[in-house]
Amino acid sequence: MDKYEHGGNIYVYKEDVIDFSSNINPLGFPECIKDSMDVAVLTKYPDVNYAQLKRSISRYVNLKDENIIVGNGASELIYLFVRAFSLKRPLIPSPAFLEYERAVILSGGNPLYYEIPEKDGYVIDADEIVNRLLEVDSVIIGNPNNPTGKGIKRKDVEYIVKEAKKLNLPMMIDEAFVEFIYDYKEYQSLDFIKDYDNLFVVRAATKFFGLPGLRLGYGFGSENLIKRLEAYKEPWTVNAFADAVSRRIFEDVEFMEKTRKYIREEITYLTSEMKKIDELVVFDTLTNFMLLKLKHMHVGDLKEELLKRGILIRDASNFRYLDDRFFRVAVKSHDDNVKLIEAIKEVLK
Amino acid sequence: MDKYEHGGNIYVYKEDVIDFSSNINPLGFPECIKDSMDVAVLTKYPDVNYAQLKRSISRYVNLKDENIIVGNGASELIYLFVRAFSLKRPLIPSPAFLEYERAVILSGGNPLYYEIPEKDGYVIDADEIVNRLLEVDSVIIGNPNNPTGKGIKRKDVEYIVKEAKKLNLPMMIDEAFVEFIYDYKEYQSLDFIKDYDNLFVVRAATKFFGLPGLRLGYGFGSENLIKRLEAYKEPWTVNAFADAVSRRIFEDVEFMEKTRKYIREEITYLTSEMKKIDELVVFDTLTNFMLLKLKHMHVGDLKEELLKRGILIRDASNFRYLDDRFFRVAVKSHDDNVKLIEAIKEVLK
Repeated sequence: MDKYEHGGNIYVYKEDVIDFSSNINPLGFPECIKDSMDVAVLTKYPDVNYAQLKRSISRYVNLKDENIIVGNGASELIYLFVRAFSLKRPLIPSPAFLEYERAVILSGGNPLYYEIPEKDGYVIDADEIVNRLLEVDSVIIGNPNNPTGKGIKRKDVEYIVKEAKKLNLPMMIDEAFVEFIYDYKEYQSLDFIKDYDNLFVVRAATKFFGLPGLRLGYGFGSENLIKRLEAYKEPWTVNAFADAVSRRIFEDVEFMEKTRKYIREEITYLTSEMKKIDELVVFDTLTNFMLLKLKHMHVGDLKEELLKRGILIRDASNFRYLDDRFFRVAVKSHDDNVKLIEAIKEVLK
Repeated sequence: MDKYEHGGNIYVYKEDVIDFSSNINPLGFPECIKDSMDVAVLTKYPDVNYAQLKRSISRYVNLKDENIIVGNGASELIYLFVRAFSLKRPLIPSPAFLEYERAVILSGGNPLYYEIPEKDGYVIDADEIVNRLLEVDSVIIGNPNNPTGKGIKRKDVEYIVKEAKKLNLPMMIDEAFVEFIYDYKEYQSLDFIKDYDNLFVVRAATKFFGLPGLRLGYGFGSENLIKRLEAYKEPWTVNAFADAVSRRIFEDVEFMEKTRKYIREEITYLTSEMKKIDELVVFDTLTNFMLLKLKHMHVGDLKEELLKRGILIRDASNFRYLDDRFFRVAVKSHDDNVKLIEAIKEVLK
């Protein structure tokens, strides 16, 4: 697997597959966006200031427009944060989303990795992060973390942000998956930006709102932090469709509640079924995907066998500190989840 | 006017205006894209390699897929080129599109500007560029150039590229407007990439295909140059709509021919009418927009008077070497063009 290859790249597979490698909302997207699809929006530049879009997001998260920046998915904002603060030595608890590392290296930096211990099921220990703050110039954390599915609770997040602020270190928290957590309010850190001007929180419509093709991300921070990012931002990176349809998706509370309820049910089902399979080590997850480890088989062989059965999993061997026994699967429809379990049982029996 | 403010930012005006500030194809966009609008494409990540999109573009320009990179409008590719080659001291014949300068400065560089002489009607002298190559680390040129509307002919382009190559200097030519030129084949430089591996040519669907909201740009270079850019590129920056609809627009030859014919007629009309107005200095243009200078009035006053008449022009005073007597207008529908002439005559009489 290529060093920075992602899940969800179905374009390299010829046949139709059930794609468990991509961790997108299995319920689809808010229906309202269908009504906003109008080709006319393409004939004008999107508002380079995205005033109306920011207003919609600000209502959703209960922050001011000045605390918001929008971008081409979460990725643009991750790269922008690294560049705007010239980060050369961030602390990245790992395994982690590969783009953090790539963004830093392409900016001429060299991250410090904290290896999240497998023996604790990949729970991140806030003290381990705080203990390393003197060695780094910033902190980048996924919460919940990809590919482990583990999260850091609010009080621990605040503890880290507070200690980082004492040392004047910027900190980015990637919350691309936080809204999938049933009790997400115990994990989200948006309201900390009022007290900690070193904090940047990133989210996106990609995963939770099921719209990876739309390319809409958004970030939150103090007014000064957002101004700094805007000074480095390239213009018009959010396309006019994303601008137009996003004005409604954040109001669809029913879609959001339904998603959280569904994910909780299905991840409970997947976890309990996976735990019945002897060959697997199952890591409990908070969110819509889970990390698994094969005790003996290599993931390449499992992936190949499952592909023959029309199922695509995420080979997780290219994540730092993981090896060719690890894979990741995401929640799909219940029928598809059943097929996944049956296929894995068949291959591993 | 803000230092990097662009035309076309209609979002700051409350009333409906005829927007001459934005230099987009006045005939709209290829009709075929309406058939490709399918919300389903948003539910998947775009192909991170954009294989099919590159194939469509390669057929359009008659180059290989390996010579093509796609991006979020031309802007992403401009910024990417500057970053991938760590350009610190490019030569930028100016006045020029503002994003070249901004990209360089945000990357910690400091461009060298060659002032294109007003007395020659802003014709770029290739010798003037070649004479400065020893002082710079690269060359960035718009062809045709924005806001002047002047172009550099193929043999002069090749002369510059060749001399730059001798010194191992990368060179970017921004051809965002080249397809509007009636005899564009005399100006475009795509076929030079076979012989000059220092050359990067940028285009976009934004202007010529009338789709600024879509955010689709594409660049051309040698296989090695493209590989270098890809190594620095952020993933998925072209959204799935752009990916999907673009598979057809490049086949709409009728739209392209009709556009060129229309632009030639209307720019001829606008130029001859503008030349009848004593207060104006008119600079001849090759493309779909033109630069004008007021002999006595300030552009702020003209803009204000025209806004009262429902017309928006591009205050060009924030372009380097221009001042508050310059403005730019783009071709619109013939009726709108007539309204523009009448309104300007009325204000300047």
